[in-house]
Amino acid sequence: MTKKIIIAIDAMGGDNSPDKVINAVNFFLKKNLNRDYIIKLFGNEKKILNKLNEYKIKSDLIKVIHAESVVSDEETPLTAIKNSKNTSMWKCIKSQIESDSDISLSAGNTGVLLVVSRMILKMKDKVSKPALAGLWPSIDDLNVVLDLGANIECNDKNLIDFAELGSALHKSLFPEKKQIVSLLNVGSEEIKGTETLKNTYKKLKELSNDNNFLFNGYVEGNNIMTGKSNVIVTDGFTGNVALKTAEGTAKFITDNLKKALTENLYTKISLFFSYFSLKKFKNKLDPRKYNGAIFLGLNGPVVKSHGGTDSLGFYYSIELCYKIVKGNLMKQIDNNLNHLSVEK
Amino acid sequence: MTKKIIIAIDAMGGDNSPDKVINAVNFFLKKNLNRDYIIKLFGNEKKILNKLNEYKIKSDLIKVIHAESVVSDEETPLTAIKNSKNTSMWKCIKSQIESDSDISLSAGNTGVLLVVSRMILKMKDKVSKPALAGLWPSIDDLNVVLDLGANIECNDKNLIDFAELGSALHKSLFPEKKQIVSLLNVGSEEIKGTETLKNTYKKLKELSNDNNFLFNGYVEGNNIMTGKSNVIVTDGFTGNVALKTAEGTAKFITDNLKKALTENLYTKISLFFSYFSLKKFKNKLDPRKYNGAIFLGLNGPVVKSHGGTDSLGFYYSIELCYKIVKGNLMKQIDNNLNHLSVEK
Repeated sequence: MTKKIIIAIDAMGGDNSPDKVINAVNFFLKKNLNRDYIIKLFGNEKKILNKLNEYKIKSDLIKVIHAESVVSDEETPLTAIKNSKNTSMWKCIKSQIESDSDISLSAGNTGVLLVVSRMILKMKDKVSKPALAGLWPSIDDLNVVLDLGANIECNDKNLIDFAELGSALHKSLFPEKKQIVSLLNVGSEEIKGTETLKNTYKKLKELSNDNNFLFNGYVEGNNIMTGKSNVIVTDGFTGNVALKTAEGTAKFITDNLKKALTENLYTKISLFFSYFSLKKFKNKLDPRKYNGAIFLGLNGPVVKSHGGTDSLGFYYSIELCYKIVKGNLMKQIDNNLNHLSVEK
Repeated sequence: MTKKIIIAIDAMGGDNSPDKVINAVNFFLKKNLNRDYIIKLFGNEKKILNKLNEYKIKSDLIKVIHAESVVSDEETPLTAIKNSKNTSMWKCIKSQIESDSDISLSAGNTGVLLVVSRMILKMKDKVSKPALAGLWPSIDDLNVVLDLGANIECNDKNLIDFAELGSALHKSLFPEKKQIVSLLNVGSEEIKGTETLKNTYKKLKELSNDNNFLFNGYVEGNNIMTGKSNVIVTDGFTGNVALKTAEGTAKFITDNLKKALTENLYTKISLFFSYFSLKKFKNKLDPRKYNGAIFLGLNGPVVKSHGGTDSLGFYYSIELCYKIVKGNLMKQIDNNLNHLSVEK
């Protein structure tokens, strides 16, 4: 019998928790009938049990572990270290080293989550900086983009680690695909960009091979989604601005579209005819489907859900955790990092 | 009698020139009947005169100045300095100092345009670096965003110059509005970002006043378009990535929407009812309306049109030139820079 996938969830973090968390768990249980996983819920035991009752969940795949307090949104990473040892977030991550959890998931305070994860799980030996990776829709499927904000300044060694970590993540999620890495830059010619980018370009070109990833050179912002590469590497400042700018642009366009399609009787009639197609369109772009940023480079994976997402969004991040462990992310990372030390 | 606005146009740069340029000029002549401007067309005289004939343009508001050659797309900024003195681009910009042109417009090679403009017009005394500014749609109207790629690395002095230059541009285009400056960053709290950003933040806070601009702190990528500020300041690397990511996202969404709305008979019927509203929606987001990046910080303004735009896009960039000169951009810049030297 193969070992079960053990997902540790901070049941108290983010808006409307634990309700949205338990609702999402309920959905996950119904969708995944192969019983090859265990979900550990960390937080106020009474509240969680009440919610499990409310949703009529009785499953031996669920375990509840009590934690007295919750990391507040106002807590800063600096104070969290001494204040957060009794929180659901801390105990959740700690279970990756003190018991048998394979991955942690939280919708709580991002800054604290990054600091606490790093403190508890420690950085992998060969990694220079951990990174926050996200999934980004593309013509083909989903791209991995990193760093999304864990490190606002990066050198070439950091960016090369991100390429190795990001392609390991992509391989764990899409094992049938070839990982194609690109560096985000302001032009596609080899001479463009900062000195750091030029040095990274040279080294990634040397590292490019059939076993880990193929390096596809520079990519500009307008080609992140065109399917030319599926792992996009950048520093945390640029990645964060790019991600949020894309979110803002998408919101601006869809808000204007909504206004246009509901402005009069004619457009409302038109919706009658286009309803299913527009629903499919909306569904494809639904940001809840990409919910979950993955913290890479530690001795164990941690997934951060958007704090404001709903139960469907949180469900997708549980699904992401399941896929990451099933795809053997940590082994893929070790493979990639070994290749790094051999080649260099 | 007030002096006429004199717009110098490189008639040969970009795709389908001089045809698209002359077509655009024709449109501009028909739209602007107040005859307070002169358009100088630089390029192959014979070709331009033929096109003017073709479009039946006979106007004393048009002057044609012959130039033997054209800057090719392959020319690099380095070689352009000795190769480009007989080109339409060079002569066009040169007319700002050798004759009476107020502004230059070209759809030609961007790198060469930046270098040649800087060589001919020289940087203004008080400016540390020139910047490329663009117009970006927002809920309210249009924002100015800079730098979009002229300087991939910037210090606090550069960013402060960009705030002064950008708000002068915004004031020349929207004199009735208050200029609200924000710095693009990865969070809105004062402690976020690089040291350069933190230093810039402090200085902009001191410079904020009722005469030049109000400083509104940091803005994140998702709030560029929400109308909270109308002048967004960033370094050329981040600005370029943000702009292209927004373009790529917009294209991804509208391509998917088009597919959804034409996929079957029902959706095609729906278009019959939503045609005018969707046209208005499309029109609002039409990138041709924002065509034209403005090179700021030299002793004269230069506007770069997208090389690939059509005659309507080029028309909008002529309109932009007209507005910039009418709004007294150079005087606004001097005012802002004076304020800078007094306050510091």
